[in-house]
Amino acid sequence: MARTDTLKLGTFVYTFGFNPAAWRHPDADVQGANKIDHLLNVAKISEAAKFDFMFLADSPAAAIGDADALARSPTKMNRFEPLSLISALSVLTEKLGFVATASTSYYEPYNIARLFASIDHLSGGRACWNVVTSDHDETGYNYGFEGLPPHAERYERGSEFVDVVFGLWDSFEPDALVLDKAKGLYHDKDKLHTLNHKGKHFQVRGPLNIAASPQGRPVIAQAGGSEAGMELAARTAEIVFSLASNLERNKAFADNIKSRMAKYGRSTNDLKLMPGLVVNVGETKAEAQAKVDFLIDNLHPDVGRWMLGEFLEADLSGVALDQPFPLERLPTEPKGSKAMFEWLRDFIMEGHTVGELIRFYAEKSTGNGITGTPTEIADFMEEWFQAGAADGFILMLPTLPASLNDFVKLVLPELRRRGLFREEYEGKTLRENLGLSMPVNRYAAARNGGIAKET
Amino acid sequence: MARTDTLKLGTFVYTFGFNPAAWRHPDADVQGANKIDHLLNVAKISEAAKFDFMFLADSPAAAIGDADALARSPTKMNRFEPLSLISALSVLTEKLGFVATASTSYYEPYNIARLFASIDHLSGGRACWNVVTSDHDETGYNYGFEGLPPHAERYERGSEFVDVVFGLWDSFEPDALVLDKAKGLYHDKDKLHTLNHKGKHFQVRGPLNIAASPQGRPVIAQAGGSEAGMELAARTAEIVFSLASNLERNKAFADNIKSRMAKYGRSTNDLKLMPGLVVNVGETKAEAQAKVDFLIDNLHPDVGRWMLGEFLEADLSGVALDQPFPLERLPTEPKGSKAMFEWLRDFIMEGHTVGELIRFYAEKSTGNGITGTPTEIADFMEEWFQAGAADGFILMLPTLPASLNDFVKLVLPELRRRGLFREEYEGKTLRENLGLSMPVNRYAAARNGGIAKET
Repeated sequence: MARTDTLKLGTFVYTFGFNPAAWRHPDADVQGANKIDHLLNVAKISEAAKFDFMFLADSPAAAIGDADALARSPTKMNRFEPLSLISALSVLTEKLGFVATASTSYYEPYNIARLFASIDHLSGGRACWNVVTSDHDETGYNYGFEGLPPHAERYERGSEFVDVVFGLWDSFEPDALVLDKAKGLYHDKDKLHTLNHKGKHFQVRGPLNIAASPQGRPVIAQAGGSEAGMELAARTAEIVFSLASNLERNKAFADNIKSRMAKYGRSTNDLKLMPGLVVNVGETKAEAQAKVDFLIDNLHPDVGRWMLGEFLEADLSGVALDQPFPLERLPTEPKGSKAMFEWLRDFIMEGHTVGELIRFYAEKSTGNGITGTPTEIADFMEEWFQAGAADGFILMLPTLPASLNDFVKLVLPELRRRGLFREEYEGKTLRENLGLSMPVNRYAAARNGGIAKET
Repeated sequence: MARTDTLKLGTFVYTFGFNPAAWRHPDADVQGANKIDHLLNVAKISEAAKFDFMFLADSPAAAIGDADALARSPTKMNRFEPLSLISALSVLTEKLGFVATASTSYYEPYNIARLFASIDHLSGGRACWNVVTSDHDETGYNYGFEGLPPHAERYERGSEFVDVVFGLWDSFEPDALVLDKAKGLYHDKDKLHTLNHKGKHFQVRGPLNIAASPQGRPVIAQAGGSEAGMELAARTAEIVFSLASNLERNKAFADNIKSRMAKYGRSTNDLKLMPGLVVNVGETKAEAQAKVDFLIDNLHPDVGRWMLGEFLEADLSGVALDQPFPLERLPTEPKGSKAMFEWLRDFIMEGHTVGELIRFYAEKSTGNGITGTPTEIADFMEEWFQAGAADGFILMLPTLPASLNDFVKLVLPELRRRGLFREEYEGKTLRENLGLSMPVNRYAAARNGGIAKET
């Protein structure tokens, strides 16, 4: 039976687009990493298209590595800090949601709780926190660590961190403010609560010094695919950004995460699985392919070699582009995606040059990529959606705003024609538009004789 | 000889105004702590008046104490987080500067460096960081401490924190971005620098992942009056917010701080001493006094008793308003201001009731207060300015927007008539309007054969 809900859509943001050569596109605003106009434009296009949100990826570090390659690849080197950015963008828009990434490994929970609650108020209920525990050693070096803290430690801290933040967000019950000037009574003292959290990683008294926010609490996004990550997502996440590379794997991942929700008292409707999807669209397949080729042609060999080296965790500097790949530098085990590693190994074994391999990797590394006509892309999205492999997509557009404009112009009308995407926003808040339920304040629940929902 | 420069002015912001009863004023927007309209209005009035900045005071904690009193006194209980707030306000204004308070005791330097650099870009060069080490045990409880960390420890950490942030802000030299699409070169690798800070409190590698900001670096404000605070201000601050209660003390404080600047290679022009000034203005003295009386009459006895108890560090709950002050609860030594303590003790000894004492304290506790006609207030400001006790004032307006509107309507024309305040903004950035010099990037200075300016 066909689904009765509709697709959720978000715009994934690296400043210039997902492709490392995106900033060289003729339509790219090269000042976009430091002047708001470019990303405001992306937000306005997304909002006019009635997208659910704009998703600000982040890492609290510049990349470390081949200085020549990095000087040609701005994504991680120069970008806005995402919380300040979404705060600014949210007051210049009306309906679009904003997802900002912030790390539980390098922040204090009281600061995160305040920042997101404040932005939820400023935006009138359009804030979402993408909870990450960070990756890459380069982040740890900026916060007093000798590299990235171990995975188990990051997730243990992250899980407690989210608990503290949720607890702080419940400090004021939703109806705690009295605001009675005549009586001089501002809030009801019985509806303001002290958390008194004492855990392994954090001791936080509270209460949070800001009233309950318009969404009850900001929406929670997450991406972790590990066992600990899936458990945290099942317990707390409302948007899950997946990276699996085919329908079957995403379907299995969706089923796996959603099957874990019941034990936390959650409905599967309250978690939207949204795979990242790289879209290259053209009126014809050839036109779409030409857009891919343009970006790959503009990927400087230094950048391609560095990206490939990062993936393989092998030093490829100095390797000649017109020679076969030096087999002794190929690791025996994949460090990242197994599928990608096997593709690369097979390609290498066919005797291609390093230059050809870079090009092959650049095309493949677009993740869940699809290049084609509007019909082909709508078919792809519809198939994933109906199969339960996706509740929507986070569009990893190769270049901004060009690829976003293409999607809105070419694919969106086809999705709407099929009844798969909204004509107008259903609600005022991000939570309403995503069709998520309103969280229950734990103290209000206890007061009303019920049991506070486990978080 | 009369000064040739002009006054700098800022609007001090507790949400509803400096007076704890401000939210009960008829013009107060009771939703102002959670909806942007009110503070945007305050910003727009300040900008139309050509003020230099809006100053967001902050504490990362709700107040702890008498729940009945706190339920009547919203200032610390419910407020926007200041960094998200100024980010939003800055993109809705064009010329006004924004000062946000953030604590070196409870943040990570990499996060603060990113947030303020990002806001400096978003605002086009109108961001200022008010560096504080925090006060009150209540803040420590939210960050894993058993109360407020000791003063010496806070300042040692704070001083190193500022060094790290300054270092990170220099990561990209001002002309590091090449932005050459054709060559595929985004930045000049030789103009991006790794900090590699290894200190007692912090180890931070860097570089910061955002380009040099429009002001070279955000402006720095500070308020510390201790020896360590004055030394940090002389070394790093560009706005100093003083709290001394008379002209002579402010003059001595200004001279003291400014005399310490030479050893850091700084000109005294690069530090603006701006005392906080509580202004109650009316067309007549009686009208001005009536405004004070209105607020004091609206100060609920619970709030007054709690404030007085906080100052004396004495528990006054349950003390009857119509009885004399219980002398056994009066401490022998002042914990806060000595002058205030002596005023209170003399008043108590005269046999006044607790109710009268609260009223007396509420009037006196307005700090550098002046209540009077536009001429009297302009005389006061001019005298302080010409004596070198102030380079300008941070206006602690009792209620917002009413007292701000009064000041703009009544006092500002008189200041302008005397040539003491600008008719138009001189520059585009806060730094330009304050007449501060542009900081020199340490690496650019070294490259140019000079010696990097000590910070």
